[in-house]
This record gives sequence, C-alpha cells and structure tokens, in this order.
Amino acid sequence: MLNGRLKCSGIKKGKNGVGIAVIEGRIFAVYTKNRIRSASITFNLRNLGEKVRGIIVNSGNANAFTGKAGLRNAERIAGFLAKKLGCDISEIAIASTGVIGMQLDVDEIERLADEAFRNLGEGEESIKSFARSIMTTDSFPKISRRVFDGIEILGIAKGAGMISPNMATMLAFIFTNARVEGMDRIFREAVDISFNRLIVDGDMSTNDTVFLVTTEEVETDSEKFSKNLKSLMLELAEMIARDGEGATKVFWVKVEGARSNSDARKVARAVAGSNLVKTAMFGGDPNFGRIVCAAGYSGAEVDEDLTIKIKSKKGEVFVVERGNVREENLGKAREVMEAEKVEIEINLHKGDGESYAIGCDLTFDYVELNSKYTT
Amino acid sequence: MLNGRLKCSGIKKGKNGVGIAVIEGRIFAVYTKNRIRSASITFNLRNLGEKVRGIIVNSGNANAFTGKAGLRNAERIAGFLAKKLGCDISEIAIASTGVIGMQLDVDEIERLADEAFRNLGEGEESIKSFARSIMTTDSFPKISRRVFDGIEILGIAKGAGMISPNMATMLAFIFTNARVEGMDRIFREAVDISFNRLIVDGDMSTNDTVFLVTTEEVETDSEKFSKNLKSLMLELAEMIARDGEGATKVFWVKVEGARSNSDARKVARAVAGSNLVKTAMFGGDPNFGRIVCAAGYSGAEVDEDLTIKIKSKKGEVFVVERGNVREENLGKAREVMEAEKVEIEINLHKGDGESYAIGCDLTFDYVELNSKYTT
Repeated sequence: MLNGRLKCSGIKKGKNGVGIAVIEGRIFAVYTKNRIRSASITFNLRNLGEKVRGIIVNSGNANAFTGKAGLRNAERIAGFLAKKLGCDISEIAIASTGVIGMQLDVDEIERLADEAFRNLGEGEESIKSFARSIMTTDSFPKISRRVFDGIEILGIAKGAGMISPNMATMLAFIFTNARVEGMDRIFREAVDISFNRLIVDGDMSTNDTVFLVTTEEVETDSEKFSKNLKSLMLELAEMIARDGEGATKVFWVKVEGARSNSDARKVARAVAGSNLVKTAMFGGDPNFGRIVCAAGYSGAEVDEDLTIKIKSKKGEVFVVERGNVREENLGKAREVMEAEKVEIEINLHKGDGESYAIGCDLTFDYVELNSKYTT
Repeated sequence: MLNGRLKCSGIKKGKNGVGIAVIEGRIFAVYTKNRIRSASITFNLRNLGEKVRGIIVNSGNANAFTGKAGLRNAERIAGFLAKKLGCDISEIAIASTGVIGMQLDVDEIERLADEAFRNLGEGEESIKSFARSIMTTDSFPKISRRVFDGIEILGIAKGAGMISPNMATMLAFIFTNARVEGMDRIFREAVDISFNRLIVDGDMSTNDTVFLVTTEEVETDSEKFSKNLKSLMLELAEMIARDGEGATKVFWVKVEGARSNSDARKVARAVAGSNLVKTAMFGGDPNFGRIVCAAGYSGAEVDEDLTIKIKSKKGEVFVVERGNVREENLGKAREVMEAEKVEIEINLHKGDGESYAIGCDLTFDYVELNSKYTT
C-alpha cells in the first residue's frame, strides 16, 4: 500500500495554490496535444527522467505563453523541491494550471511551497489538502481510490472548464504501489478511455497533464490492475464533467452500430460537444433533432435509420427508433432527463463500431464564470 | 433590373411562415454538408432543373429527419406552387427551416401559401414580407442590395443559431438580372468567402441552403459582378452573425502569416468557435490566453512567436507582439472591445497564409433561447 511511501500537502492563498507530493517511484506522463504548451510541460519533457522523487503543482497561473522567462521560472520551482529533497531536478515533475500569459510570482510560490513542504503528511487530510490546492474553478476536490490484493491506486484530479478530448486544464495524479507488465501501455489506454472522452467546452488547454507514479513494490496481474485503473480514471473523469464550469448535469453519449469505432467516436464527440445539445440538456429537453443534426455533421457515416434512447436512474425510453420519432415518449423522456446523470444511446445500425463521450450541460453559470474570469 | 421580373410575398402565423418568390431564371444552389438533410434539399436534388419559375420556403418546421412522409410533403408543397404557376415541379425550388423530426402540417402551409400567393408584389414591402416570413429566432429581417451598370443584386437571408462553416439553418436567396461567364464558380466562391466563414455556435444544420436565381437579362463583367456579389453576401453573413442567438457582438478573426491559407483558416475557425473566446468577447475581456490556446489546438502550425491585435472603431491595440504580452495595453484593449464589432488580428509569423472567420459572442441569452427552444 502507499502508507509510508506517499506524503502530500497543499496550500491555497487567494488565487494561488501549491501542492506537493513526495514519492519515490517510476513516473509515466501524458500531456496536452496543444501546440502552445505550458513551460511546466516543456520543463518535464526536457528534464524529467524515468524516476521521480517529488511532484510540485501550482494553481492560479498556467505558466503558459510565458517564453524563456517562464521556463526559467519552471526550473526555479522544480529546483526548490529538488533542493528540499536533496535530489536532481530530473527527479522532479511539475504542473501548472490557471491563467495564460502572465509570468509566475515565483517568490510567492516558494513561500507557499515552503509552507506546504513543512506540512507534508500521509493521512486523508494531507491528500485532501493537495487536492484542494490544485483547484481553480473546481467546486469540489476530486479523489478516488481502489484497493485490492495488496495494491492501492490513489487518484487526485482537477478539472472544471476548458476540457476536451486530449484533456484540457485538467491535471490528474495517480499513485500506486503496483508493478505490472506494460505499465506505460496500460496507463495510456486508461487515459484514452477516460480523460480523453471528456468534453466540457471543446477547448483544449495548454497545460493538461496526467502523471502516474508507481513504487513498484507489489507485483500484480496486468489485467486486474488495468481494470481498476480504468475504473478509477473514469470515476475522476466523471467527477470533472459533473464539476464542469456551471454544469448541472453530466451526460454520456454512447454510440453503437457505427461503421467503425472511429466513426462511433466522431458521433459521440460531435453530440457531446454540440452547444445546442448541451443547452437542451440544461433545459431538460429531449431534443433528438439536435442529436441527429450533430451526428449528421460529425463526419461519420450516418443516415436517418438510427435509434436514440434516453436513459437515467429515472428510467429509459426510445425517442427515435430506426428513424421513426416516438413522439408519444417525449413526455417520459423529459422525466428521465431530470436526473443528474443522463445517457444518450445512439445506434447507427451500420456495423459493430462503438464509442462514447462524457459531457456536461451548458448553463447560465458557464457564461457567468467565463465572461468574468479575467486575464 | 429586377422590376417586373421578381415578385415576392410572405406570411407568418404563430410559428409557421411561408415565403414565395416568383422569378423566371437560371438557378444555382449550395446546400449543407450535413449527412442528415432536410427533405426539401432532397427534393431539390432529385427534381430541380437548371431553370426555375418559383421558390417556396416554409419556416417553423425544418422537414428534416422526416423520412418518406417528409419527402411526400415536400413534393406536395412544390406541387402547390407549380400548379399556381402552371409549371412543372422541376421548376420549383423549396427550402425549410425550423424544428427537426416533426412532420409538416401541409394543410396549414397550403393555407398560408395561398394567402402569400395572393399577395405577391414587387415593392420593398413585398420583399420585406418575404424576409420576415422565413425568420425563426432571427430578430430582424436581412436584406441587402447592390446596383451598378444596369445590374441589380438582391439578397435576402435568415440565420440566427446553429450557424457554422458550411452554413447552418441559414437560408439565403440571391436574385439578379446579370448574365456573366462562370456564374456557378463565382457563386460558389462568394458563398465560400462569406456564409462559410460564419461560426455562430459551431453546429451545422440539416437545412442550409443558398440559392441564386438570375434572369440573365444584362450581360456584365464577371469580375465586377463577383466583387459586388461577394460584398453583398458578406454583408448578409455579418448580419447573421450580429443576429446570432443572444449575440451582442460580432467579431472577425483575421489570421495572417500562416504557413498556408488552410492553416490560417484552421486558426480563424478555432478562435471564432471557442466557447471560451466567445464568452470573453461577451465580457469585454481581452483574454489573449484563450486566443493563443485556441490557436494552439487548431491543428495549424503555431508557436509562441505570434502577434495579436484587437481592433474596432474605438481604436486598435497590440495585446501580444511576437510572443510578448503587452500588459500595459490591456486596459486600452478593454475599451476597444466595447464596440459592437471587434476584430482580432492574429499574425503567426510563419508564412503568407491568410484567412478569416466571423463569429459572435456567447451570452446568457444564447443559453436562455436554446435551453427553452422546444422539440
């Protein structure tokens, strides 16, 4: 287990926060595909080795679009923790989240980091303080855990807005003690079926990062580990969608019967990303027309012969069956949509391809938050 | 000129409207690329010839996702006007806009069409009544005209929501008396530089249609005609953006210095389509970070060495110059952004590629309109 192996701490003062995790192990990372990347990511790509001793994260400032000065600042932050741990900066991983294009106040970050470092601990409170310190517009800390066969997997994430496949201002930190065959592949697959299925507002940030650190102390079955890792990451991804800026509802778009998995993915993303579908979800309106429309422009092979089912804990109902609108079911569909988590199942009746995307509704609060979030 | 050649009329009762234009001429058409298309479009593709005698448009119901019954209804509507004009249905063009997935009430449409037909006229009032009858969530009728060298070009459009490149629930009708070489190419080019640059909410409808009808009575220079047609269509496109659902502001994103025109187009579309940029525009926030971020994920070749200028009738100001943030200008940028029309100029410093997109802000009213617009 991670007891005695992982120490965490975090502190937030005003808009600025610093979280520190100290753990010795092997590190795996996935970063945003945005061409403009945070200096933190550039730092990791240039310096970070296979082994890690600590992770330091700052919130409030993305350290993105900050040029050479940004990179020097990233080095200073990593250097701070390296010095404390008596290790090389190649053993420090860093991450940032917040506004773009402003230089970091490294003095302030060092002050916060110093305090965080003094408070490092192992208990739940320490983990929560780390989770809270990395929040920006998040409304709750995101922590998930799996324990089985002497293995522990602990996940901590932050999300909120600007989240799109290939992640976006999303940070996630996974810690485990498992040693498995093919960890890198397993990790990437898990990211692909979880965080990369998220669409909050379709924007992809400069800073998205997922780290997995493992102490490799307990050997275990790859398949069982993979299953647990995926379920943990999916849980975190769903928390992020639920906490999408201003969101009141999470919805899954599950597509089956597509010509290919890639076609299914296109449809799922187009539907989950459509502002018209997202506002209809907010209004509790079973607007199959907008769903059909988004499927139609997704680029996938789609025709009118499709089926749409709306599902939640309040029941399930077909709104379209093989191209025929089930008007008599729209009232029931409205009821089904009152739940906080709704599934839209789309069958294209073209083949065996399937995929899904996880989205959230578009609300007044999204506009409120984002028209005022200042540069 | 079009006097004596074009007769228009329109009527709106509740949500349903019918517009009729009677004109003998050659017709050109561009339709949505959505895979799910209105039965009206399918009707035109199957039946409409090169010559047209009349156009009939209904608003309130898109006649999309309506299967074989929808197609029969489209035939009935076209048949109605063909009978009145004593022509074949291959000489009737039709278009629809409104909700998706509901069968048309053709009896009601025929009643409205009958009244519209009786009121056909040539004056400005007739043109306006046509323009008004095709409106859905539009807040004003969209009419534009060019007159030169005995040539008249009259354009009538409707737009509002769901507008994205390759148009979306956008209908436009262009009438002219010009005979020019290569009319089809000129028409398609003009659509490409105008309506296809629009992004209102990124959704692309099942019904978008642009028709051009020319009586071919006056021969004229292709280039001059093309210039006028483009300027007219751009004016209509900008009216549509200004009237985007809930929009308070139009913004142009002009990109230059890209590796290629296609790269420039990607950046322009990503920035104009970003919900984060759109909400920042609403808030009057010169959030260059979001602009940079959208450019970064556009798929184009982009790095930090870029320049961003904000421009309006209130002045112009650099917010980023070759990668350096001009913080001292952000106050001025806020002032510049108070105008109703704002330009974001982005220079990527990579080559000669250039393009642009036309967008509008994302507001509380957008959410209000679209969370309540019912199936």
